[in-house]
Amino acid sequence: MYYAFTDKLFLQREAGSKIVQSPENFRGFRVSNLTHANRLVVHEEIMTSTTTVKLKPSAKPGVTLTFLLTADPEHISVGRAVERQRTTLEGELCFYQKHLVGAFNVFSHLSERFAAFRIPSSPEVQGWVRSVRAQKEVLFLHINDGSSLENLQVVADPSLENRDLTFGSAVEVEGKLVKSPHRMQNMELKAETIRVVGPCDTWLFPLKMKERHPLEYVRQFPHLRCRNNTLGSLLRIRSEATAAIHSFFQDNGYVHIHTPIITSNDCEGAGELFQIEASNEAKESAEKTHFFNVPAFLTVSGQLHLEVMAGAFTHVFTFGPTFRAENSQSRRHLAEFYMVEAELSFTENLQDVTQVIEDLVKTATSTVLSKCPRDVELFHKYVAPAQKDRLEQMLKNKFVTISYNEAVEILKQASQTFTFKPEWGCDLQTEHEKYLVKHCGEVPLFVINYPYDLKPFYMRDNEDGPQRTVAAVDLLVPGIGELCGGSLREERLPFLESRLQRLGLADTYQWYLDLRKFGSVPHGGFGMGFERYLQYILGVDNIKDVIPFPRFSHSCLL
Amino acid sequence: MYYAFTDKLFLQREAGSKIVQSPENFRGFRVSNLTHANRLVVHEEIMTSTTTVKLKPSAKPGVTLTFLLTADPEHISVGRAVERQRTTLEGELCFYQKHLVGAFNVFSHLSERFAAFRIPSSPEVQGWVRSVRAQKEVLFLHINDGSSLENLQVVADPSLENRDLTFGSAVEVEGKLVKSPHRMQNMELKAETIRVVGPCDTWLFPLKMKERHPLEYVRQFPHLRCRNNTLGSLLRIRSEATAAIHSFFQDNGYVHIHTPIITSNDCEGAGELFQIEASNEAKESAEKTHFFNVPAFLTVSGQLHLEVMAGAFTHVFTFGPTFRAENSQSRRHLAEFYMVEAELSFTENLQDVTQVIEDLVKTATSTVLSKCPRDVELFHKYVAPAQKDRLEQMLKNKFVTISYNEAVEILKQASQTFTFKPEWGCDLQTEHEKYLVKHCGEVPLFVINYPYDLKPFYMRDNEDGPQRTVAAVDLLVPGIGELCGGSLREERLPFLESRLQRLGLADTYQWYLDLRKFGSVPHGGFGMGFERYLQYILGVDNIKDVIPFPRFSHSCLL
Repeated sequence: MYYAFTDKLFLQREAGSKIVQSPENFRGFRVSNLTHANRLVVHEEIMTSTTTVKLKPSAKPGVTLTFLLTADPEHISVGRAVERQRTTLEGELCFYQKHLVGAFNVFSHLSERFAAFRIPSSPEVQGWVRSVRAQKEVLFLHINDGSSLENLQVVADPSLENRDLTFGSAVEVEGKLVKSPHRMQNMELKAETIRVVGPCDTWLFPLKMKERHPLEYVRQFPHLRCRNNTLGSLLRIRSEATAAIHSFFQDNGYVHIHTPIITSNDCEGAGELFQIEASNEAKESAEKTHFFNVPAFLTVSGQLHLEVMAGAFTHVFTFGPTFRAENSQSRRHLAEFYMVEAELSFTENLQDVTQVIEDLVKTATSTVLSKCPRDVELFHKYVAPAQKDRLEQMLKNKFVTISYNEAVEILKQASQTFTFKPEWGCDLQTEHEKYLVKHCGEVPLFVINYPYDLKPFYMRDNEDGPQRTVAAVDLLVPGIGELCGGSLREERLPFLESRLQRLGLADTYQWYLDLRKFGSVPHGGFGMGFERYLQYILGVDNIKDVIPFPRFSHSCLL
Repeated sequence: MYYAFTDKLFLQREAGSKIVQSPENFRGFRVSNLTHANRLVVHEEIMTSTTTVKLKPSAKPGVTLTFLLTADPEHISVGRAVERQRTTLEGELCFYQKHLVGAFNVFSHLSERFAAFRIPSSPEVQGWVRSVRAQKEVLFLHINDGSSLENLQVVADPSLENRDLTFGSAVEVEGKLVKSPHRMQNMELKAETIRVVGPCDTWLFPLKMKERHPLEYVRQFPHLRCRNNTLGSLLRIRSEATAAIHSFFQDNGYVHIHTPIITSNDCEGAGELFQIEASNEAKESAEKTHFFNVPAFLTVSGQLHLEVMAGAFTHVFTFGPTFRAENSQSRRHLAEFYMVEAELSFTENLQDVTQVIEDLVKTATSTVLSKCPRDVELFHKYVAPAQKDRLEQMLKNKFVTISYNEAVEILKQASQTFTFKPEWGCDLQTEHEKYLVKHCGEVPLFVINYPYDLKPFYMRDNEDGPQRTVAAVDLLVPGIGELCGGSLREERLPFLESRLQRLGLADTYQWYLDLRKFGSVPHGGFGMGFERYLQYILGVDNIKDVIPFPRFSHSCLL
């Protein structure tokens, strides 16, 4: 996809100028002053904008300038030009979404090399019509291609109007990019031709022009709701958040592991599992016809499989779908959801685990905020107005940590009366979690060292009393409750063996006990619910609105 | 995780020096000559190595140098120093796997600022013992922490030996890093203390010291095989390949979509589906107790769901697990495998789709080759010696394209006799695919425009005769056969509607027909089997050896 005019330049990209490969270059650019190295520094910028290029004259004429520019809708170009005169070069580049569609007076001062750039004189723009307004002397269209929340305004002669040119239709427009007289936009496209590629039956189309449809309404149309502004923004944010999480772990030396989706492991003996069979065999239901010979389930967590890997790699992570057959219509639960899970070997302190959680949440959030400012703004403006301040506070401050013991004391001393009386040894209920987060100042809150009996067999005994507490942690966040859960794992064979024996699980988990027989190391890890994370940063109330195709009891559309 | 000594430097990283964030910096470095911009260019380098730093004197003394270095096991540091004298700075940095553990004579010429780096005088190294050799006067250990195929040699006094210090045990070693007298390694650790963190029962441990276990053997131990060299390399390569594929799409402006795993869609009416039910309800098996109200299956492809998204975004991709309940023990099939799928809107030519496939395969492969040279070398040396040349040829040359018509003609004219006689209208069998790839010079081969009746309903009619061919493409590669499949999709409502009606599927796919009623656009896409891709680049014969936890008929271990 990249082409260069000289080998040298291509090498330069290879060597260090990651700039070309980073996603922000595909959206629209701000081209800032030349650096001391005579490299153009290219930043992400708002879409559909006119950008001014001021090239400071370099130290001496004849020096080589390198450019990184989108030159046409399908290619990123790397070009260079020799500045022949010591003049200030000034001009404007025009972008529609990720495409450079025009240039004014930038290149006139540059050498003929630059002419090799294909800058379309009449750019063609493709997208879906978001609004049509026909006036007596002019026809206005707003079109969008999904790369941004922003629309491009198209101005056309009323003669170009046609019956199929409606809200929702797909169009290709050719024309000239001109400066817009409007305050709200920099550029508009003066159409020369408009071709309706795919018409839209507006009568049947459930989305209506310029209507702000409630999220509940669009949820009914899983095959069309991505064409709604809010869902469009959500999906772009989800994509960036996914990338940010992958990068966080890769940048920190973690090996990515695809933990299995189908497992013969019924995990914590939880009842809420999905079982699977080959569809033609499912009807027979005799034990012997199992496709895998044994009953098989959809995974509820990749943790145990990650622990396998933590016996060979010091840092591993997984990011994939997990499943719970919970008969719940809650705003916080789905039958299919995504989990980010990590496991760290040679880790003896719970604090090493909580530090990774805090770094992950902060890094991913800063990245999303800087990569999708407009999309996030939509949520912070219309969906959850208080959220912006909350996130800024979160990013600035250290997360708070309290022990389960302290949590129970705080709850006992609360003036509020709870439906469930707070008592040492009982699980924290949603009402308790909310109170604790509020009590600590509406900030993310780690609660650590839970009672032994409340937690699964693999958590590490703190030995602060006979089977009293384990090195477990939950991260509670405002508005959501539990976002992450983690622990140190019991790496000591005798402790783990006796606990599994008491639970009658020693045979089932023989392979897990093996991990403690052959080079066992202290280790710990955590899981974060990805949809809850999105709910948290965007302030979205219902988890069904942060996943492309929600699955929950009684519903599996498409 | 990053810290800087000055705000200015931190800002510099933010603005453009992506270097700090790229994964290669976390493994070990080659620090090359200063660029003209006085920036150190930092490349990936082999682990456990001594690297020489030669800093060319800059144009004038007093100029600022910036450094990007790992300074201790947990942090990446960004430092800077003012070069006070015009001298050539020369020295060596020592890395054990991803950690900088020593430095010789590098920093003496630099200012006191540099002293702020924490370079441990006695590094502590953690890992698993890969070999123990006790000689009369010296004890040799090789330890590995999974970040690299390379081991670190530890040299110790025999008094440090202990009963638990065996192959497979986990250790922490403190000592001094010294230059090694050995030809094969640059550095070794002279141990001061050795602590066995987790012993290993070598009698029971199925992996044995210095034995080259066959892949079939280690496959029996899914919870331990990652500790084997070959599987370790495979998993690192798989992790890098995953990242490379994500980056390819993100860099090219694609929105990442999590297409659903559970679907009510039985897709192409394929019989080889897994059906799912809540485990407690599965036993009742009455239609009414379906968890989702309707029968639900594990996805066989995210394509139709991606097509939903291609109605709002021009470029989308997904990379997740897919499932086939195939009763096959083949070396090329799994019940659970990963697919990379992409969909492109406003795309009218099959060539636009094949171009993306070719770019993807080449970009991902170059990235893997450059990021994991040693790990790939293991495969190219011991597993598939011919593979290296094949890949180099592949990267250099354009993929070949032939039509299905041409393919049938080639096969008909072949001197070879086939088990299945080649005939227009019949599917290409493995023997045919192999012959075609060989005939075209053992290079990746696109076969396009397949007979209409051979392909699923969503593929676009080429209208070269009454329902004669569709705009479909398969990518065949040497040693594997089909690696990718794609097509233009039928975007024209009447064509799609009549085909679905003939198949009796018009009701089921009403939602899919809707996509053609509301702003339909010409579009196309493809899917690539990720495990087959790994088999292809590494020359691994059995697909079970390129996935962490293989699932196939009669087998679902762990």
